[in-house]
Amino acid sequence: MNSYCKRLGVFDSGVGGVTVLKEILKTESFDDIVYFGDTGRVPYGSRSREIITNYARQDVRFLCECNVDKIVIACGTVSAIALDTLKNEFDIPIIGVIDTAIDAALAATQNGVIGVIGTKATISNNAYERNIKSKAPNTKIISVPCPLFVPLVECGFTEHDNTVTKMVAMQYLKPIIDSGADTLILGCTHYPMIAEIIRSCFDHINLINVGAALADKIKCDNLKNSIYSPKIKYYVSDDVEDFKNSAVVFLGKPYEFEIEKIDIQKY
Amino acid sequence: MNSYCKRLGVFDSGVGGVTVLKEILKTESFDDIVYFGDTGRVPYGSRSREIITNYARQDVRFLCECNVDKIVIACGTVSAIALDTLKNEFDIPIIGVIDTAIDAALAATQNGVIGVIGTKATISNNAYERNIKSKAPNTKIISVPCPLFVPLVECGFTEHDNTVTKMVAMQYLKPIIDSGADTLILGCTHYPMIAEIIRSCFDHINLINVGAALADKIKCDNLKNSIYSPKIKYYVSDDVEDFKNSAVVFLGKPYEFEIEKIDIQKY
Repeated sequence: MNSYCKRLGVFDSGVGGVTVLKEILKTESFDDIVYFGDTGRVPYGSRSREIITNYARQDVRFLCECNVDKIVIACGTVSAIALDTLKNEFDIPIIGVIDTAIDAALAATQNGVIGVIGTKATISNNAYERNIKSKAPNTKIISVPCPLFVPLVECGFTEHDNTVTKMVAMQYLKPIIDSGADTLILGCTHYPMIAEIIRSCFDHINLINVGAALADKIKCDNLKNSIYSPKIKYYVSDDVEDFKNSAVVFLGKPYEFEIEKIDIQKY
Repeated sequence: MNSYCKRLGVFDSGVGGVTVLKEILKTESFDDIVYFGDTGRVPYGSRSREIITNYARQDVRFLCECNVDKIVIACGTVSAIALDTLKNEFDIPIIGVIDTAIDAALAATQNGVIGVIGTKATISNNAYERNIKSKAPNTKIISVPCPLFVPLVECGFTEHDNTVTKMVAMQYLKPIIDSGADTLILGCTHYPMIAEIIRSCFDHINLINVGAALADKIKCDNLKNSIYSPKIKYYVSDDVEDFKNSAVVFLGKPYEFEIEKIDIQKY
Protein backbone atom coordinates (compact mmCIF):
# COMPACT_ATOMS: atom_id res chain seq x y z
CA MET A 1 0.00 0.00 0.00
CA ASN A 2 1.34 3.45 -0.94
CA SER A 3 1.68 6.29 1.53
CA TYR A 4 -1.13 8.79 1.94
CA CYS A 5 -1.59 11.35 -0.82
CA LYS A 6 -3.13 14.65 0.24
CA ARG A 7 -4.26 15.83 -3.19
CA LEU A 8 -4.11 13.74 -6.35
CA GLY A 9 -3.81 15.38 -9.78
CA VAL A 10 -5.24 13.60 -12.83
CA PHE A 11 -5.22 14.81 -16.40
CA ASP A 12 -6.36 13.75 -19.82
CA SER A 13 -6.85 15.33 -23.25
CA GLY A 14 -10.55 15.51 -22.45
CA VAL A 15 -13.24 13.52 -20.72
CA GLY A 16 -11.88 10.03 -21.55
CA GLY A 17 -9.68 10.00 -18.46
CA VAL A 18 -12.80 10.04 -16.32
CA THR A 19 -12.90 6.25 -16.88
CA VAL A 20 -9.58 6.18 -14.98
CA LEU A 21 -10.93 8.52 -12.30
CA LYS A 22 -13.87 6.13 -11.92
CA GLU A 23 -11.49 3.25 -11.13
CA ILE A 24 -9.44 5.45 -8.76
CA LEU A 25 -12.60 6.42 -6.87
CA LYS A 26 -13.57 2.74 -6.52
CA THR A 27 -10.49 2.26 -4.32
CA GLU A 28 -11.88 4.90 -1.90
CA SER A 29 -8.32 5.91 -1.08
CA PHE A 30 -8.08 9.52 -2.29
CA ASP A 31 -9.98 12.30 -0.53
CA ASP A 32 -9.05 15.27 -2.66
CA ILE A 33 -8.73 14.99 -6.43
CA VAL A 34 -8.09 17.63 -9.09
CA TYR A 35 -8.84 16.54 -12.67
CA PHE A 36 -7.82 18.59 -15.70
CA GLY A 37 -9.46 17.78 -19.06
CA ASP A 38 -7.94 19.65 -22.01
CA THR A 39 -11.27 19.85 -23.83
CA GLY A 40 -10.18 22.96 -25.75
CA ARG A 41 -7.48 20.94 -27.54
CA VAL A 42 -8.81 17.38 -27.49
CA PRO A 43 -7.99 14.94 -29.13
CA TYR A 44 -4.27 14.35 -28.55
CA GLY A 45 -4.03 10.92 -30.21
CA SER A 46 -3.91 12.15 -33.80
CA ARG A 47 -1.25 14.80 -33.14
CA SER A 48 2.55 14.75 -33.39
CA ARG A 49 4.94 13.77 -30.59
CA GLU A 50 6.08 17.40 -30.26
CA ILE A 51 2.60 18.88 -29.88
CA ILE A 52 1.49 16.11 -27.48
CA THR A 53 4.59 16.71 -25.32
CA ASN A 54 4.06 20.51 -25.32
CA TYR A 55 0.39 20.17 -24.36
CA ALA A 56 1.23 17.62 -21.63
CA ARG A 57 3.88 19.96 -20.21
CA GLN A 58 1.28 22.72 -19.88
CA ASP A 59 -1.16 20.27 -18.26
CA VAL A 60 1.44 19.21 -15.64
CA ARG A 61 2.44 22.83 -14.96
CA PHE A 62 -1.19 23.69 -14.31
CA LEU A 63 -1.68 20.74 -11.92
CA CYS A 64 1.52 21.67 -10.05
CA GLU A 65 0.00 25.12 -9.46
CA CYS A 66 -2.98 23.32 -7.90
CA ASN A 67 -0.59 21.91 -5.27
CA VAL A 68 -1.13 18.24 -5.99
CA ASP A 69 1.24 15.64 -4.45
CA LYS A 70 1.17 13.18 -7.29
CA ILE A 71 0.02 13.20 -10.92
CA VAL A 72 -1.75 10.45 -12.83
CA ILE A 73 -1.66 10.68 -16.63
CA ALA A 74 -5.14 9.32 -17.37
CA CYS A 75 -4.40 9.42 -21.09
CA GLY A 76 -3.01 6.53 -23.09
CA THR A 77 -1.45 8.84 -25.67
CA VAL A 78 0.47 11.06 -23.22
CA SER A 79 1.55 7.99 -21.21
CA ALA A 80 2.97 6.44 -24.38
CA ILE A 81 4.59 9.56 -25.83
CA ALA A 82 5.64 11.92 -23.05
CA LEU A 83 5.96 10.10 -19.69
CA ASP A 84 9.77 9.92 -19.68
CA THR A 85 10.14 13.57 -20.73
CA LEU A 86 7.71 14.74 -18.05
CA LYS A 87 9.43 12.63 -15.37
CA ASN A 88 12.76 14.22 -16.33
CA GLU A 89 11.44 17.76 -16.32
CA PHE A 90 9.30 17.76 -13.16
CA ASP A 91 10.11 16.77 -9.56
CA ILE A 92 6.60 15.61 -8.67
CA PRO A 93 5.80 11.87 -8.94
CA ILE A 94 4.07 11.21 -12.29
CA ILE A 95 2.40 7.89 -13.11
CA GLY A 96 1.28 6.75 -16.57
CA VAL A 97 -1.11 3.97 -17.50
CA ILE A 98 1.25 1.73 -19.47
CA ASP A 99 3.36 -0.16 -16.92
CA THR A 100 0.44 -1.30 -14.80
CA ALA A 101 -1.59 -2.28 -17.86
CA ILE A 102 1.29 -4.42 -19.11
CA ASP A 103 1.65 -6.19 -15.75
CA ALA A 104 -2.08 -6.91 -15.76
CA ALA A 105 -1.95 -8.20 -19.35
CA LEU A 106 1.04 -10.47 -18.67
CA ALA A 107 -0.75 -11.86 -15.61
CA ALA A 108 -3.92 -12.50 -17.65
CA THR A 109 -2.57 -14.10 -20.83
CA GLN A 110 -2.36 -17.87 -21.00
CA ASN A 111 -1.18 -18.29 -24.59
CA GLY A 112 1.27 -15.35 -24.64
CA VAL A 113 -0.49 -13.53 -27.48
CA ILE A 114 -1.52 -9.98 -26.52
CA GLY A 115 -3.35 -7.38 -28.60
CA VAL A 116 -2.91 -3.66 -28.02
CA ILE A 117 -5.26 -0.98 -29.35
CA GLY A 118 -4.85 2.77 -28.98
CA THR A 119 -4.72 6.07 -30.81
CA LYS A 120 -2.52 6.59 -33.86
CA ALA A 121 0.17 8.32 -31.75
CA THR A 122 0.18 5.58 -29.08
CA ILE A 123 0.52 2.74 -31.54
CA SER A 124 3.15 4.34 -33.78
CA ASN A 125 5.22 5.05 -30.69
CA ASN A 126 5.44 1.29 -29.90
CA ALA A 127 5.55 2.02 -26.15
CA TYR A 128 3.49 -1.07 -25.25
CA GLU A 129 5.44 -3.34 -27.57
CA ARG A 130 8.85 -2.24 -26.24
CA ASN A 131 7.77 -2.53 -22.62
CA ILE A 132 6.14 -5.94 -23.00
CA LYS A 133 9.18 -7.29 -24.86
CA SER A 134 11.52 -6.09 -22.10
CA LYS A 135 9.48 -7.94 -19.47
CA ALA A 136 8.48 -11.04 -21.44
CA PRO A 137 10.52 -11.36 -24.63
CA ASN A 138 8.58 -14.35 -25.97
CA THR A 139 5.24 -12.62 -25.98
CA LYS A 140 3.61 -12.13 -29.36
CA ILE A 141 2.12 -8.62 -29.65
CA ILE A 142 -0.30 -7.32 -32.25
CA SER A 143 -0.77 -3.53 -32.11
CA VAL A 144 -3.50 -1.76 -34.03
CA PRO A 145 -4.43 1.95 -34.11
CA CYS A 146 -8.19 2.60 -33.85
CA PRO A 147 -8.45 6.33 -34.65
CA LEU A 148 -12.23 6.38 -35.08
CA PHE A 149 -13.02 4.92 -31.64
CA VAL A 150 -12.58 8.24 -29.75
CA PRO A 151 -14.91 10.21 -32.06
CA LEU A 152 -17.43 7.33 -31.98
CA VAL A 153 -17.45 7.46 -28.17
CA GLU A 154 -17.62 11.26 -28.13
CA CYS A 155 -20.50 11.22 -30.65
CA GLY A 156 -22.42 8.77 -28.45
CA PHE A 157 -22.21 5.68 -30.67
CA THR A 158 -21.75 3.59 -27.52
CA GLU A 159 -24.86 1.43 -27.01
CA HIS A 160 -23.81 -2.22 -26.69
CA ASP A 161 -25.57 -3.14 -29.96
CA ASN A 162 -24.49 -0.09 -32.01
CA THR A 163 -24.11 -1.39 -35.57
CA VAL A 164 -21.75 1.34 -36.79
CA THR A 165 -19.30 0.96 -33.91
CA LYS A 166 -19.48 -2.84 -34.16
CA MET A 167 -18.69 -2.67 -37.89
CA VAL A 168 -15.73 -0.31 -37.32
CA ALA A 169 -14.52 -2.53 -34.43
CA MET A 170 -14.66 -5.69 -36.56
CA GLN A 171 -12.63 -3.90 -39.26
CA TYR A 172 -9.97 -2.53 -36.86
CA LEU A 173 -9.71 -5.67 -34.69
CA LYS A 174 -9.46 -8.25 -37.50
CA PRO A 175 -5.65 -8.66 -37.27
CA ILE A 176 -5.95 -9.21 -33.51
CA ILE A 177 -8.85 -11.66 -33.86
CA ASP A 178 -6.88 -13.54 -36.55
CA SER A 179 -3.79 -13.70 -34.32
CA GLY A 180 -5.60 -15.76 -31.66
CA ALA A 181 -4.77 -13.25 -28.90
CA ASP A 182 -6.41 -14.14 -25.58
CA THR A 183 -5.78 -10.71 -23.99
CA LEU A 184 -6.37 -7.18 -25.27
CA ILE A 185 -5.09 -3.97 -23.73
CA LEU A 186 -7.53 -1.07 -24.15
CA GLY A 187 -4.70 1.44 -24.54
CA CYS A 188 -6.89 4.55 -24.64
CA THR A 189 -9.01 5.72 -21.75
CA HIS A 190 -12.08 6.26 -23.97
CA TYR A 191 -12.26 2.60 -24.91
CA PRO A 192 -13.86 1.23 -21.71
CA MET A 193 -17.02 3.06 -22.88
CA ILE A 194 -17.28 0.57 -25.79
CA ALA A 195 -15.73 -2.41 -23.99
CA GLU A 196 -18.76 -4.63 -24.54
CA ILE A 197 -18.80 -3.96 -28.30
CA ILE A 198 -15.09 -4.76 -28.44
CA ARG A 199 -15.62 -7.92 -26.37
CA SER A 200 -18.40 -9.05 -28.71
CA CYS A 201 -15.93 -9.18 -31.64
CA PHE A 202 -14.09 -12.09 -29.97
CA ASP A 203 -15.10 -15.61 -28.90
CA HIS A 204 -13.19 -15.07 -25.68
CA ILE A 205 -10.89 -12.24 -24.62
CA ASN A 206 -9.41 -10.82 -21.41
CA LEU A 207 -9.90 -7.06 -21.68
CA ILE A 208 -7.37 -4.95 -19.79
CA ASN A 209 -8.85 -1.64 -18.64
CA VAL A 210 -5.77 0.54 -18.11
CA GLY A 211 -7.59 2.65 -15.50
CA ALA A 212 -8.47 -0.34 -13.32
CA ALA A 213 -4.89 -1.66 -13.46
CA LEU A 214 -3.50 1.75 -12.51
CA ALA A 215 -6.00 2.35 -9.69
CA ASP A 216 -5.13 -0.98 -8.12
CA LYS A 217 -1.44 -0.07 -8.17
CA ILE A 218 -1.66 3.46 -6.74
CA LYS A 219 -4.30 3.00 -4.05
CA CYS A 220 -3.13 4.26 -0.68
CA ASP A 221 -4.07 4.36 3.01
CA ASN A 222 -7.15 6.42 3.50
CA LEU A 223 -6.94 8.24 6.82
CA LYS A 224 -10.69 8.73 7.11
CA ASN A 225 -13.16 6.23 8.48
CA SER A 226 -16.37 8.01 7.57
CA ILE A 227 -18.51 7.44 4.47
CA TYR A 228 -16.38 8.02 1.39
CA SER A 229 -17.14 11.46 0.03
CA PRO A 230 -14.13 12.74 -1.91
CA LYS A 231 -13.63 16.36 -2.91
CA ILE A 232 -13.52 16.40 -6.72
CA LYS A 233 -12.58 19.50 -8.69
CA TYR A 234 -12.65 19.43 -12.46
CA TYR A 235 -10.85 22.02 -14.55
CA VAL A 236 -11.42 22.15 -18.30
CA SER A 237 -10.12 24.30 -21.15
CA ASP A 238 -13.50 24.67 -22.89
CA ASP A 239 -17.17 24.91 -21.98
CA VAL A 240 -18.02 23.40 -18.57
CA GLU A 241 -21.54 22.21 -19.49
CA ASP A 242 -20.51 19.74 -22.20
CA PHE A 243 -17.84 18.27 -19.94
CA LYS A 244 -20.20 18.04 -16.98
CA ASN A 245 -22.76 16.03 -18.95
CA SER A 246 -20.18 13.64 -20.39
CA ALA A 247 -18.33 13.26 -17.08
CA VAL A 248 -21.49 12.10 -15.32
CA VAL A 249 -22.05 9.46 -18.03
CA PHE A 250 -18.37 8.37 -17.98
CA LEU A 251 -18.28 8.23 -14.16
CA GLY A 252 -21.54 6.31 -13.92
CA LYS A 253 -22.03 7.36 -10.28
CA PRO A 254 -23.22 10.77 -9.04
CA TYR A 255 -20.30 12.07 -6.96
CA GLU A 256 -20.49 15.73 -6.05
CA PHE A 257 -17.96 17.95 -7.80
CA GLU A 258 -16.97 21.51 -8.69
CA ILE A 259 -15.97 22.55 -12.18
CA GLU A 260 -14.12 25.55 -13.59
CA LYS A 261 -12.81 26.67 -16.97
CA ILE A 262 -9.18 27.79 -17.35
CA ASP A 263 -6.98 29.07 -20.18
CA ILE A 264 -4.37 26.31 -20.59
CA GLN A 265 -2.45 28.31 -23.23
CA LYS A 266 -1.11 30.47 -20.36
CA TYR A 267 0.74 27.61 -18.67
CA MET B 1 -15.30 40.76 -61.26
CA ASN B 2 -13.44 41.84 -58.11
CA SER B 3 -10.28 43.92 -58.15
CA TYR B 4 -6.88 42.22 -58.16
CA CYS B 5 -5.71 40.68 -54.88
CA LYS B 6 -1.96 40.50 -54.42
CA ARG B 7 -1.88 37.84 -51.71
CA LEU B 8 -4.92 35.87 -50.51
CA GLY B 9 -5.07 34.43 -47.00
CA VAL B 10 -7.14 31.32 -46.35
CA PHE B 11 -7.59 29.50 -43.06
CA ASP B 12 -9.35 26.49 -41.62
CA SER B 13 -9.22 24.41 -38.44
CA GLY B 14 -7.19 21.87 -40.40
CA VAL B 15 -7.00 20.34 -43.84
CA GLY B 16 -10.76 20.48 -44.64
CA GLY B 17 -10.47 24.00 -46.04
CA VAL B 18 -8.26 22.66 -48.81
CA THR B 19 -11.53 21.71 -50.57
CA VAL B 20 -12.22 25.48 -50.67
CA LEU B 21 -8.68 26.22 -51.85
CA LYS B 22 -9.23 23.68 -54.64
CA GLU B 23 -12.26 25.64 -55.88
CA ILE B 24 -10.39 28.96 -55.54
CA LEU B 25 -7.52 27.59 -57.63
CA LYS B 26 -9.96 26.45 -60.33
CA THR B 27 -10.77 30.13 -60.98
CA GLU B 28 -7.07 30.73 -61.82
CA SER B 29 -7.41 34.24 -60.44
CA PHE B 30 -5.06 34.29 -57.44
CA ASP B 31 -1.29 34.14 -57.90
CA ASP B 32 -0.13 34.13 -54.32
CA ILE B 33 -1.99 32.24 -51.60
CA VAL B 34 -1.17 31.67 -47.93
CA TYR B 35 -3.18 28.88 -46.24
CA PHE B 36 -3.14 28.32 -42.49
CA GLY B 37 -4.45 24.98 -41.15
CA ASP B 38 -4.74 24.84 -37.36
CA THR B 39 -3.90 21.13 -37.23
CA GLY B 40 -2.59 21.43 -33.67
CA ARG B 41 -6.09 22.31 -32.43
CA VAL B 42 -8.42 20.72 -35.01
CA PRO B 43 -11.40 20.13 -34.84
CA TYR B 44 -13.21 23.41 -34.10
CA GLY B 45 -16.77 22.18 -34.74
CA SER B 46 -17.26 20.44 -31.39
CA ARG B 47 -15.94 23.37 -29.32
CA SER B 48 -17.68 26.31 -27.65
CA ARG B 49 -18.38 29.67 -29.29
CA GLU B 50 -15.77 31.34 -27.03
CA ILE B 51 -12.95 28.92 -27.88
CA ILE B 52 -13.77 28.96 -31.60
CA THR B 53 -13.72 32.78 -31.60
CA ASN B 54 -10.42 32.90 -29.70
CA TYR B 55 -8.77 30.42 -32.03
CA ALA B 56 -10.11 32.23 -35.12
CA ARG B 57 -8.74 35.55 -33.79
CA GLN B 58 -5.27 34.00 -33.51
CA ASP B 59 -5.61 32.57 -37.04
CA VAL B 60 -6.50 36.00 -38.50
CA ARG B 61 -3.71 37.72 -36.55
CA PHE B 62 -1.23 35.25 -38.00
CA LEU B 63 -2.46 35.76 -41.58
CA CYS B 64 -2.29 39.55 -41.14
CA GLU B 65 1.39 39.15 -40.25
CA CYS B 66 1.79 37.32 -43.57
CA ASN B 67 0.71 40.54 -45.33
CA VAL B 68 -2.36 39.16 -47.07
CA ASP B 69 -4.86 41.59 -48.69
CA LYS B 70 -7.97 39.58 -48.04
CA ILE B 71 -8.91 36.61 -45.85
CA VAL B 72 -11.17 33.68 -46.71
CA ILE B 73 -12.54 31.68 -43.78
CA ALA B 74 -12.48 28.23 -45.40
CA CYS B 75 -14.19 26.76 -42.34
CA GLY B 76 -17.94 26.36 -41.96
CA THR B 77 -17.75 26.52 -38.18
CA VAL B 78 -15.76 29.78 -37.95
CA SER B 79 -17.92 31.35 -40.69
CA ALA B 80 -21.04 30.50 -38.68
CA ILE B 81 -19.75 31.45 -35.24
CA ALA B 82 -17.16 34.22 -35.53
CA LEU B 83 -17.44 36.09 -38.85
CA ASP B 84 -19.19 39.18 -37.44
CA THR B 85 -16.79 39.43 -34.50
CA LEU B 86 -13.75 39.11 -36.76
CA LYS B 87 -15.11 41.72 -39.20
CA ASN B 88 -15.61 44.12 -36.28
CA GLU B 89 -12.15 43.57 -34.83
CA PHE B 90 -9.99 43.59 -37.98
CA ASP B 91 -9.70 46.11 -40.81
CA ILE B 92 -8.82 43.59 -43.51
CA PRO B 93 -11.64 42.23 -45.73
CA ILE B 94 -12.79 38.85 -44.36
CA ILE B 95 -15.11 36.54 -46.30
CA GLY B 96 -16.95 33.53 -44.88
CA VAL B 97 -18.60 30.65 -46.72
CA ILE B 98 -22.20 31.15 -45.59
CA ASP B 99 -23.61 34.02 -47.68
CA THR B 100 -22.47 32.68 -51.03
CA ALA B 101 -23.64 29.15 -50.15
CA ILE B 102 -27.09 30.48 -49.30
CA ASP B 103 -27.34 32.40 -52.59
CA ALA B 104 -26.36 29.24 -54.48
CA ALA B 105 -28.90 27.17 -52.55
CA LEU B 106 -31.74 29.63 -53.12
CA ALA B 107 -30.90 29.68 -56.84
CA ALA B 108 -30.88 25.88 -56.97
CA THR B 109 -34.03 24.95 -55.04
CA GLN B 110 -37.26 24.48 -56.94
CA ASN B 111 -39.53 23.37 -54.11
CA GLY B 112 -38.18 25.78 -51.45
CA VAL B 113 -37.11 23.02 -49.07
CA ILE B 114 -33.40 23.24 -48.17
CA GLY B 115 -31.35 20.95 -45.92
CA VAL B 116 -28.27 22.18 -44.08
CA ILE B 117 -25.63 19.91 -42.54
CA GLY B 118 -22.59 21.00 -40.54
CA THR B 119 -20.69 20.56 -37.31
CA LYS B 120 -22.41 20.72 -33.93
CA ALA B 121 -21.29 24.35 -33.41
CA THR B 122 -22.45 25.47 -36.88
CA ILE B 123 -25.90 23.96 -36.57
CA SER B 124 -26.62 25.07 -32.98
CA ASN B 125 -25.66 28.60 -34.01
CA ASN B 126 -28.49 28.67 -36.61
CA ALA B 127 -26.45 30.97 -38.88
CA TYR B 128 -27.74 29.34 -42.08
CA GLU B 129 -31.33 29.30 -40.90
CA ARG B 130 -31.33 32.98 -39.88
CA ASN B 131 -29.67 34.10 -43.12
CA ILE B 132 -31.92 32.06 -45.40
CA LYS B 133 -35.05 33.29 -43.60
CA SER B 134 -33.95 36.92 -44.00
CA LYS B 135 -33.54 36.46 -47.76
CA ALA B 136 -36.44 34.08 -48.47
CA PRO B 137 -38.84 33.91 -45.53
CA ASN B 138 -40.99 31.14 -47.00
CA THR B 139 -38.16 28.65 -47.36
CA LYS B 140 -38.43 25.50 -45.26
CA ILE B 141 -35.08 24.64 -43.68
CA ILE B 142 -34.04 21.40 -42.03
CA SER B 143 -30.70 21.66 -40.20
CA VAL B 144 -28.87 18.61 -38.89
CA PRO B 145 -25.49 18.35 -37.12
CA CYS B 146 -23.28 15.53 -38.43
CA PRO B 147 -20.44 15.42 -35.86
CA LEU B 148 -18.99 12.10 -37.02
CA PHE B 149 -18.47 13.17 -40.66
CA VAL B 150 -15.21 15.08 -39.99
CA PRO B 151 -13.53 12.18 -38.14
CA LEU B 152 -14.78 9.75 -40.81
CA VAL B 153 -13.15 11.88 -43.52
CA GLU B 154 -9.96 12.33 -41.49
CA CYS B 155 -9.78 8.56 -40.83
CA GLY B 156 -10.09 7.87 -44.57
CA PHE B 157 -13.60 6.33 -44.61
CA THR B 158 -14.23 8.18 -47.88
CA GLU B 159 -14.48 5.60 -50.71
CA HIS B 160 -17.76 6.09 -52.55
CA ASP B 161 -19.08 2.70 -51.39
CA ASN B 162 -17.86 2.88 -47.77
CA THR B 163 -20.49 1.00 -45.76
CA VAL B 164 -19.74 2.64 -42.41
CA THR B 165 -19.95 6.20 -43.74
CA LYS B 166 -23.07 5.35 -45.76
CA MET B 167 -24.74 3.93 -42.63
CA VAL B 168 -23.84 7.02 -40.55
CA ALA B 169 -25.01 9.29 -43.40
CA MET B 170 -28.36 7.51 -43.69
CA GLN B 171 -28.84 7.92 -39.93
CA TYR B 172 -27.90 11.63 -39.84
CA LEU B 173 -29.70 12.59 -43.07
CA LYS B 174 -33.02 10.84 -42.37
CA PRO B 175 -34.88 14.04 -41.28
CA ILE B 176 -33.68 15.80 -44.43
CA ILE B 177 -34.61 12.88 -46.71
CA ASP B 178 -38.03 12.71 -45.02
CA SER B 179 -38.58 16.45 -45.52
CA GLY B 180 -38.45 16.17 -49.32
CA ALA B 181 -35.64 18.77 -49.58
CA ASP B 182 -34.34 19.16 -53.15
CA THR B 183 -31.19 21.06 -52.13
CA LEU B 184 -28.58 20.37 -49.44
CA ILE B 185 -25.89 22.77 -48.23
CA LEU B 186 -22.67 20.96 -47.28
CA GLY B 187 -21.96 23.42 -44.46
CA CYS B 188 -18.56 22.04 -43.51
CA THR B 189 -15.55 22.09 -45.79
CA HIS B 190 -14.71 18.43 -45.09
CA TYR B 191 -17.99 17.21 -46.55
CA PRO B 192 -17.15 17.50 -50.28
CA MET B 193 -14.80 14.54 -49.65
CA ILE B 194 -17.88 12.33 -49.06
CA ALA B 195 -20.24 14.17 -51.41
CA GLU B 196 -20.99 11.06 -53.47
CA ILE B 197 -21.92 9.03 -50.36
CA ILE B 198 -24.20 11.86 -49.24
CA ARG B 199 -25.73 12.11 -52.72
CA SER B 200 -26.41 8.37 -52.78
CA CYS B 201 -28.73 8.72 -49.75
CA PHE B 202 -31.21 10.73 -51.86
CA ASP B 203 -33.21 9.99 -55.02
CA HIS B 204 -32.29 13.42 -56.29
CA ILE B 205 -30.53 16.31 -54.54
CA ASN B 206 -28.72 19.53 -55.50
CA LEU B 207 -25.56 19.53 -53.38
CA ILE B 208 -24.16 22.97 -52.56
CA ASN B 209 -20.38 22.89 -52.12
CA VAL B 210 -19.67 26.02 -50.05
CA GLY B 211 -16.15 26.29 -51.49
CA ALA B 212 -17.35 26.36 -55.09
CA ALA B 213 -19.97 29.01 -54.32
CA LEU B 214 -17.40 31.18 -52.54
CA ALA B 215 -14.74 30.80 -55.24
CA ASP B 216 -17.18 31.89 -57.90
CA LYS B 217 -18.01 35.01 -55.90
CA ILE B 218 -14.47 36.15 -55.05
CA LYS B 219 -12.68 35.44 -58.31
CA CYS B 220 -10.78 38.46 -59.59
CA ASP B 221 -8.83 39.75 -62.58
CA ASN B 222 -5.65 37.80 -63.03
CA LEU B 223 -2.91 40.10 -64.33
CA LYS B 224 -0.80 37.29 -65.75
CA ASN B 225 -1.23 35.68 -69.13
CA SER B 226 1.17 32.80 -68.73
CA ILE B 227 0.34 29.24 -67.65
CA TYR B 228 -1.34 29.37 -64.24
CA SER B 229 1.24 28.49 -61.62
CA PRO B 230 0.24 30.05 -58.30
CA LYS B 231 2.58 30.42 -55.34
CA ILE B 232 1.05 28.37 -52.51
CA LYS B 233 2.41 28.50 -48.98
CA TYR B 234 0.86 26.32 -46.28
CA TYR B 235 1.38 27.00 -42.60
CA VAL B 236 0.23 24.45 -40.03
CA SER B 237 0.31 24.24 -36.24
CA ASP B 238 1.33 20.55 -36.12
CA ASP B 239 3.43 18.11 -38.10
CA VAL B 240 3.92 19.09 -41.75
CA GLU B 241 4.07 15.55 -43.14
CA ASP B 242 0.53 14.51 -42.16
CA PHE B 243 -0.88 17.72 -43.56
CA LYS B 244 1.11 17.42 -46.79
CA ASN B 245 -0.25 13.94 -47.49
CA SER B 246 -3.86 14.89 -46.78
CA ALA B 247 -3.63 18.20 -48.65
CA VAL B 248 -2.53 16.42 -51.83
CA VAL B 249 -5.53 14.07 -51.57
CA PHE B 250 -7.95 16.93 -50.77
CA LEU B 251 -6.58 19.13 -53.59
CA GLY B 252 -6.69 16.33 -56.13
CA LYS B 253 -4.15 18.12 -58.38
CA PRO B 254 -0.38 18.33 -57.83
CA TYR B 255 0.27 22.08 -57.47
CA GLU B 256 3.71 22.98 -56.13
CA PHE B 257 3.76 24.38 -52.62
CA GLU B 258 5.87 25.21 -49.58
CA ILE B 259 4.93 24.21 -46.06
CA GLU B 260 6.03 25.38 -42.63
CA LYS B 261 5.04 24.73 -39.03
CA ILE B 262 4.28 27.64 -36.67
CA ASP B 263 3.27 28.04 -33.01
CA ILE B 264 -0.24 29.53 -33.23
CA GLN B 265 -0.48 29.91 -29.44
CA LYS B 266 1.86 32.92 -29.76
CA TYR B 267 -0.56 34.97 -31.87
